[in-house]
Amino acid sequence: MRIMGIDPGYATIGFGVVDYQGAKWTPVQHGVLLTPAEMSFPERLMQIYEDMQYVLEQYQPQAVSIEKLFFNTNKTTGIMVAEARGVILLACVQKQVSVYEYTPLQVKSAVVGYGKAEKKQVMDMTRRILHLSEIPKPDDAADALALAICHGHSARLF
Amino acid sequence: MRIMGIDPGYATIGFGVVDYQGAKWTPVQHGVLLTPAEMSFPERLMQIYEDMQYVLEQYQPQAVSIEKLFFNTNKTTGIMVAEARGVILLACVQKQVSVYEYTPLQVKSAVVGYGKAEKKQVMDMTRRILHLSEIPKPDDAADALALAICHGHSARLF
Repeated sequence: MRIMGIDPGYATIGFGVVDYQGAKWTPVQHGVLLTPAEMSFPERLMQIYEDMQYVLEQYQPQAVSIEKLFFNTNKTTGIMVAEARGVILLACVQKQVSVYEYTPLQVKSAVVGYGKAEKKQVMDMTRRILHLSEIPKPDDAADALALAICHGHSARLF
Repeated sequence: MRIMGIDPGYATIGFGVVDYQGAKWTPVQHGVLLTPAEMSFPERLMQIYEDMQYVLEQYQPQAVSIEKLFFNTNKTTGIMVAEARGVILLACVQKQVSVYEYTPLQVKSAVVGYGKAEKKQVMDMTRRILHLSEIPKPDDAADALALAICHGHSARLF
């Protein structure tokens, strides 16, 4: 099964595509979708929507694993991330891809086996699970790969 | 100029369309877009997107006036409203309609002339400005009409 992890945002969206077959992981692609700060916010949403359509079409995931949002101190940024996440969900449902959401705690538990793991431990374990020579860059892409692994480990569907 | 006000949400989205020409207001249409609670959340977003495309196509507003979001105590609902709002903004920008956002304080000031006005005063003034015999129903539609009036009064563009 092919899983696409997504680390939501409005300036930088991480994505990571992996194949999971018979308990074996194969990394397919990972990277970030970027929107320029000069664009109006609605235009940035349109770019996110179009870029999401492109990567979904390009990699044809059967499932999308996306981070569940919580609001912290920066509420304005939180609202904009949620607005972008809505557009990401729209692109997924229009492609008839099932969407699953996980909390950072669930990702840490699934990848490292310990909900209070450090970010660096999650990244290093992601690298090892996917047999990559280095920790994936940038962080948003590494987070997206960890989300994809989390879905594979949590769902146990394949 | 034709203005569409939008009261964002994910279960109920209010919309209100008005024409503003030479300081004269003409109500065009108002109502609500609803999504059923039985649908998955991504499916509700898709329905909001399609319904928004429909009303934008149907009424051809030159500007959309939408409520600015703030987060209060119910953070989960707030995130879902923001996700829906992202999809609403996407539908607007794809139709090349300019979007303006206003706070509840700005709406009250523009419609009643007093930022601390009661909700009922805003609704009654909306009714009077639009020469309607009764306060528009439901509340979400009345709020949307007030947002449209706010943009007309604030922008002074026409």
